[in-house]
Amino acid sequence: MSAPLIVILNGPNLNLLGQREPEIYGHATLAEIDQMCARTAGGLGLTVECHQSNHEGALVTLVQEARGRSHGLIINPAGYTTSSVALLDALLAYPGPIIEVHLSNIHKREAFRRDSLVSRAATGVLCGFGARGYALALHAIAGLLL
Amino acid sequence: MSAPLIVILNGPNLNLLGQREPEIYGHATLAEIDQMCARTAGGLGLTVECHQSNHEGALVTLVQEARGRSHGLIINPAGYTTSSVALLDALLAYPGPIIEVHLSNIHKREAFRRDSLVSRAATGVLCGFGARGYALALHAIAGLLL
Amino acid sequence: MSAPLIVILNGPNLNLLGQREPEIYGHATLAEIDQMCARTAGGLGLTVECHQSNHEGALVTLVQEARGRSHGLIINPAGYTTSSVALLDALLAYPGPIIEVHLSNIHKREAFRRDSLVSRAATGVLCGFGARGYALALHAIAGLLL
Amino acid sequence: MSAPLIVILNGPNLNLLGQREPEIYGHATLAEIDQMCARTAGGLGLTVECHQSNHEGALVTLVQEARGRSHGLIINPAGYTTSSVALLDALLAYPGPIIEVHLSNIHKREAFRRDSLVSRAATGVLCGFGARGYALALHAIAGLLL
Amino acid sequence: MSAPLIVILNGPNLNLLGQREPEIYGHATLAEIDQMCARTAGGLGLTVECHQSNHEGALVTLVQEARGRSHGLIINPAGYTTSSVALLDALLAYPGPIIEVHLSNIHKREAFRRDSLVSRAATGVLCGFGARGYALALHAIAGLLL
Amino acid sequence: MSAPLIVILNGPNLNLLGQREPEIYGHATLAEIDQMCARTAGGLGLTVECHQSNHEGALVTLVQEARGRSHGLIINPAGYTTSSVALLDALLAYPGPIIEVHLSNIHKREAFRRDSLVSRAATGVLCGFGARGYALALHAIAGLLL
Amino acid sequence: MSAPLIVILNGPNLNLLGQREPEIYGHATLAEIDQMCARTAGGLGLTVECHQSNHEGALVTLVQEARGRSHGLIINPAGYTTSSVALLDALLAYPGPIIEVHLSNIHKREAFRRDSLVSRAATGVLCGFGARGYALALHAIAGLLL
Amino acid sequence: MSAPLIVILNGPNLNLLGQREPEIYGHATLAEIDQMCARTAGGLGLTVECHQSNHEGALVTLVQEARGRSHGLIINPAGYTTSSVALLDALLAYPGPIIEVHLSNIHKREAFRRDSLVSRAATGVLCGFGARGYALALHAIAGLLL
Amino acid sequence: MSAPLIVILNGPNLNLLGQREPEIYGHATLAEIDQMCARTAGGLGLTVECHQSNHEGALVTLVQEARGRSHGLIINPAGYTTSSVALLDALLAYPGPIIEVHLSNIHKREAFRRDSLVSRAATGVLCGFGARGYALALHAIAGLLL
Amino acid sequence: MSAPLIVILNGPNLNLLGQREPEIYGHATLAEIDQMCARTAGGLGLTVECHQSNHEGALVTLVQEARGRSHGLIINPAGYTTSSVALLDALLAYPGPIIEVHLSNIHKREAFRRDSLVSRAATGVLCGFGARGYALALHAIAGLLL
Amino acid sequence: MSAPLIVILNGPNLNLLGQREPEIYGHATLAEIDQMCARTAGGLGLTVECHQSNHEGALVTLVQEARGRSHGLIINPAGYTTSSVALLDALLAYPGPIIEVHLSNIHKREAFRRDSLVSRAATGVLCGFGARGYALALHAIAGLLL
Amino acid sequence: MSAPLIVILNGPNLNLLGQREPEIYGHATLAEIDQMCARTAGGLGLTVECHQSNHEGALVTLVQEARGRSHGLIINPAGYTTSSVALLDALLAYPGPIIEVHLSNIHKREAFRRDSLVSRAATGVLCGFGARGYALALHAIAGLLL
Repeated sequence: MSAPLIVILNGPNLNLLGQREPEIYGHATLAEIDQMCARTAGGLGLTVECHQSNHEGALVTLVQEARGRSHGLIINPAGYTTSSVALLDALLAYPGPIIEVHLSNIHKREAFRRDSLVSRAATGVLCGFGARGYALALHAIAGLLL
Repeated sequence: MSAPLIVILNGPNLNLLGQREPEIYGHATLAEIDQMCARTAGGLGLTVECHQSNHEGALVTLVQEARGRSHGLIINPAGYTTSSVALLDALLAYPGPIIEVHLSNIHKREAFRRDSLVSRAATGVLCGFGARGYALALHAIAGLLL
Repeated sequence: MSAPLIVILNGPNLNLLGQREPEIYGHATLAEIDQMCARTAGGLGLTVECHQSNHEGALVTLVQEARGRSHGLIINPAGYTTSSVALLDALLAYPGPIIEVHLSNIHKREAFRRDSLVSRAATGVLCGFGARGYALALHAIAGLLL
Repeated sequence: MSAPLIVILNGPNLNLLGQREPEIYGHATLAEIDQMCARTAGGLGLTVECHQSNHEGALVTLVQEARGRSHGLIINPAGYTTSSVALLDALLAYPGPIIEVHLSNIHKREAFRRDSLVSRAATGVLCGFGARGYALALHAIAGLLL
Repeated sequence: MSAPLIVILNGPNLNLLGQREPEIYGHATLAEIDQMCARTAGGLGLTVECHQSNHEGALVTLVQEARGRSHGLIINPAGYTTSSVALLDALLAYPGPIIEVHLSNIHKREAFRRDSLVSRAATGVLCGFGARGYALALHAIAGLLL
Repeated sequence: MSAPLIVILNGPNLNLLGQREPEIYGHATLAEIDQMCARTAGGLGLTVECHQSNHEGALVTLVQEARGRSHGLIINPAGYTTSSVALLDALLAYPGPIIEVHLSNIHKREAFRRDSLVSRAATGVLCGFGARGYALALHAIAGLLL
Repeated sequence: MSAPLIVILNGPNLNLLGQREPEIYGHATLAEIDQMCARTAGGLGLTVECHQSNHEGALVTLVQEARGRSHGLIINPAGYTTSSVALLDALLAYPGPIIEVHLSNIHKREAFRRDSLVSRAATGVLCGFGARGYALALHAIAGLLL
Repeated sequence: MSAPLIVILNGPNLNLLGQREPEIYGHATLAEIDQMCARTAGGLGLTVECHQSNHEGALVTLVQEARGRSHGLIINPAGYTTSSVALLDALLAYPGPIIEVHLSNIHKREAFRRDSLVSRAATGVLCGFGARGYALALHAIAGLLL
Repeated sequence: MSAPLIVILNGPNLNLLGQREPEIYGHATLAEIDQMCARTAGGLGLTVECHQSNHEGALVTLVQEARGRSHGLIINPAGYTTSSVALLDALLAYPGPIIEVHLSNIHKREAFRRDSLVSRAATGVLCGFGARGYALALHAIAGLLL
Repeated sequence: MSAPLIVILNGPNLNLLGQREPEIYGHATLAEIDQMCARTAGGLGLTVECHQSNHEGALVTLVQEARGRSHGLIINPAGYTTSSVALLDALLAYPGPIIEVHLSNIHKREAFRRDSLVSRAATGVLCGFGARGYALALHAIAGLLL
Repeated sequence: MSAPLIVILNGPNLNLLGQREPEIYGHATLAEIDQMCARTAGGLGLTVECHQSNHEGALVTLVQEARGRSHGLIINPAGYTTSSVALLDALLAYPGPIIEVHLSNIHKREAFRRDSLVSRAATGVLCGFGARGYALALHAIAGLLL
Repeated sequence: MSAPLIVILNGPNLNLLGQREPEIYGHATLAEIDQMCARTAGGLGLTVECHQSNHEGALVTLVQEARGRSHGLIINPAGYTTSSVALLDALLAYPGPIIEVHLSNIHKREAFRRDSLVSRAATGVLCGFGARGYALALHAIAGLLL
């Protein structure tokens, strides 16, 4: 039997990781994070598929397309965290576990970054662990699935 | 003379109708609703053109493209209802009648679903009638146009 | 078998229809609307009974009296829309479908007209269609009942 | 030609004047105030008709009935000041000048007594003058009418 | 010497008790509650007079009429709890003890049911005890009077 | 015995009366209003002294200087109505009656014009009567003093 | 069979009863109230165990320790009423009826005393009856248990 | 050495300029504005590259792509002004000066148009100057760069 | 024909420019800015008259005195930006174009500096350009006048 | 070496001390307080210079003029405490220690007196000590300077 | 006669003084502050008793135990400043003067540190003077007592 | 060298784990969680020390005592999450990494459970993972330390 598939979705500006405000977001690039996720997933008996988009609508579609063919979702909604009802609705229609990840501890930041809509659909939420947060999310999802 | 054209726009996640939270949104698929709209419109001497998009920007463009070549607009803005100033601005520039439709009675739901920006540009608003809401909207627009 | 009975309730100042701020509320009088409702209902296989009162308590009693002997309710709560918990409670005790109608699009008006308490008990809500809103409500209720 | 008619409406609990919290509302009874109004009106070439009701709906009806047959309205909305959209709507449909009177200076009292809805329909507003406020209102309305 | 009179006032929709949402309001009818109150009062050396009205204005008048001829008031303001300044003003003019009763624990319900204006005039407040709340209120008032 | 002195204070921009937004503030100039006040006061057995200043501090000083040598104060605080704690404090230290006057009905205007601090020190408040408001204020103060 | 046990918990500063602000809290000492509770309970076929603590954590522990060995809880949370989520959580885990008692009518007091968190876990709430409130609470709990 | 490049980004619905609500937004089309910008830039020793998109995600990407190859950014975020954290984050990662431009004076408009998120990343902000605002922005950016 | 006159008004503490918090407000003194304004105006065919005052009332008077004899106004209201209704009212009575200038980008600063009342009367608003903002304002006003 | 100079600034209405609401502000006059300050300062090796103004702008100027020639500032901003951004800005530009003094405990008073803007620039804040507060402020400033 | 006793209470984490965030709270340890207080008190003819606790309930008890045997209270409520109704109630029952002290100027800090409940019971409040604040409080209390 | 010590602190009511609302908090007891933590820590080269208290003050002291002798902190503040400034201050003085853990996804729960004060001091935050959250927190802290 093949390894369960986890879809990892990254929201707007995460393609700039490593270049943009590294004191907040860290020095790892998104490609390095994707590779780290693949390695960590492999060690846990999972496979991953990683996507990034700056488009809210594209993220909605990616969540929809993950239905049926994946076993869990990890999402860093970035700039769409607090405002996207569309993303929330897509996630509410996803049947498996959903882990929300933020690189920074959003509770220490501006008010408009704190009240996540996505959390209303998430199984669990992680923030403040930098790139390591994705690995923790994979551990968490492995615990939920296996 | 050809039948007046009504453009029907459906927002994010409505492509999942019939699959997603049917206790809230009903069992009809969007394709079935489109067909029902076409039949109802025909009976009223209207023609319809139906679109769905998960992209806020695409919905903005669809509203813009309906200017000049259509006589009325029916829109279910779904997840963009309460946050999209861009969609509101596109609708404010549409010269004909606009009917806003929601499948569920949004006033019974979470606060972030209730205060529609789109309503500020709408001629009339309908909610809570499920798929039948589109037919009522067509009746309403026929009454306004004919 | 006799036609199902729909009770139509109109709130305060709707007895002035046609005289009061016609640019907002239209030119039809309430008597004309009642007749139009009777005609529309007849065409749909329904009968209607129309009431208007300026008294919140009288509207509460009318809702109570509609229990058991009617199959659906259409209500334009007018000035009691946003403040009457008493009316809401009466409606919550009504077993059939309830359609809330407003002549104007209340979402374009002052803040104190927008947050309807009545909507919490309504099956569906319609606003902005003028006198035609009652006919749409009858169509909607027919769809729900028949 | 007969003297212009001014309708004076008093809201809930004003029938208790002279008995209830005289340190706030004064010692004059409503009957004494009515007589004083008649005398003052006579001196100004006006006639008055005075009503009191504890019923919001009755006050709405009294405002409606003043249309066409009176030249001005003086209203002390008392307990319905801040909550009655129904009364506001009736007043918005009254074509002549409307003077809102409060015996006490409501701006020194609890928050729920301060933000008058009725003021949105009033020509002018007077508060804090006790029973004399009615005489001032008659002077004001005389100045507007004559 | 005759037994002190306690006036018991029940607000809108309480005439439906036993029929309306019994999981919230219980199965006793208002007539049964009235009889229970009479029995309990008798045992405490009190007499009661019970009224119910759906009209805010009628409740205001009932409070006014209880002045002078009764020794205490028990009121379940129901739907007028949080919005009626008129009722509050009538109660502020009542010289004896006032007990406010709610069948359900209103603090567990929607926000618009919680912030009672009536409590500002009440001696004591009771909620969540169902029909038994009236008996407790009679015990309380007996303690205050006797 | 000399006639009691009433000090009339006019706040910022009232020196422009007759020129500035006459549809809101009327066509009378401040000089004309001052003359009308003197005439009205004379007829009531009062004398007046009229001042205008654009300076908050000057108005504070004028209120202070009115202590001891005047019997009442009429003030149109204009642009300092809702923000000046300094003016409120000066008025709280004034021992006689204070009438607050506004030309327009401020309750129909922007939110920042409505919540008067000055009203917390005023005996009575008048608004919406245009220049005639000053005459009414003189009548009111005569009633309080004489 | 032994009488059912009711645990009565009193929060911070209630050990000062009779000394502290008697015009608000009455003249009975806590010891006197405890004795009165024991007598009242005896008459109702109940036994009581009374505790007071100034420590939020001690109150939490007392609620926990009442689980299993008592049949009902009466709590006057005093200064922890509106802020203690810890106490609320302990009460939510208590399986029997819970009556919340306040000596004063907290709805007439400062805003920070009014919005009780404890009420979210209480079966019923009583306030404004002074020391007698405990007796009423015992009557209420007897009614619920027996 | 070639002229410094300024990227000019226009948000949703600005492609309708000249057609949509000209009393608010003016009569110039976006093409005309682009040409005017090119001419003004030329005169200042700058070159411009103009983009418009209805898609939030596309605007995010355009900001990202301007990094490294341009010296300054002028952005009219239109309907994304107050809601787009994604756009704000992209701008926060842009190293050069950013000028935010609005055609209308947004401070005179509805509340939901006023509290710009984009301003938190902007060097300077200009509004209310119509199409001329772009020329002023170019002057401003020239002053900052040259 | 003489050059059109532009009055430039600077609010409280701007006389300290160059000394006070230069990292926010820059190093230019007000005298230097006045000279730069005169030069820029000359190049645009305009003349300027520059004033500074720490007094709200003096600024109100300066705005009034600019009526009739000037063609446009540039104002940096500084500490009176968000609180002065008096200044707003004076500006509303000024017939020509008004440009509001702030040296710093006020949208990045404390909440109490952000919600400008003055903007409600301004034609256009500029902030964040330091001393150069005055030159841009002159360019803007030249564009509007010439 | 001469004694360090402390400038003491008193805001609006403090010239009335001893006459105005002595139950709040005490019986000492400002002249007596000034003398007491001089004596206390002398004992601490300081000299004082005392000013009072009802004008916000004059207070701003006094703060500015204290720069360079004084070593510390004591300010009782009175009615300008919560509204004057101009005064705050002047204080932010003052290089030495600033002590804010209020005669009454403002935290026990109305909401509009409590949220001091001046405190954002103050080194320390004292309230509720009456006239003695100035002496404490001098002790405090001596501790900071010496 | 023995010297009057002043009880000094220090709230949570003040036992860490000198170690924790010295840039905010200073370098003195609590033991050093206690010694300084004893010395200062001695010089003023007072004796002190110093306590510190991390427990809200213990602080409540310490305030209660100070009743009767002390003449004044100095309290630094630290982390319980804004949330402890229990502490407020204990202080309200303390008959002597109460001085509230904070080491830092809490008005410059986060919103949740600013709105002190304790101030509602305090005679006077001091903040921003570091360890010296205790000495000032002793001076203040000496002035009140002696 | 010995394994780094991680202190694990559990707040109020967590001693009831496994018994209280297991549908929210899961079936594991706290003893089982402690054992699981010890095992997981061992596997990561860490040692743990586990504490639980219902007392806010005790938790403050436990945080203080962890300073110097531990390398990291894991805290589930439970009922003190949103209200304890005292706990926040203790954590701000802790020099190592702090991981905040909640068993349930608090963002799906009542508003008063959501806005964590503790998060302002935490390095990272985890919620919604049940008992497994502690293991993830240990993994996270191992990643930070090792």
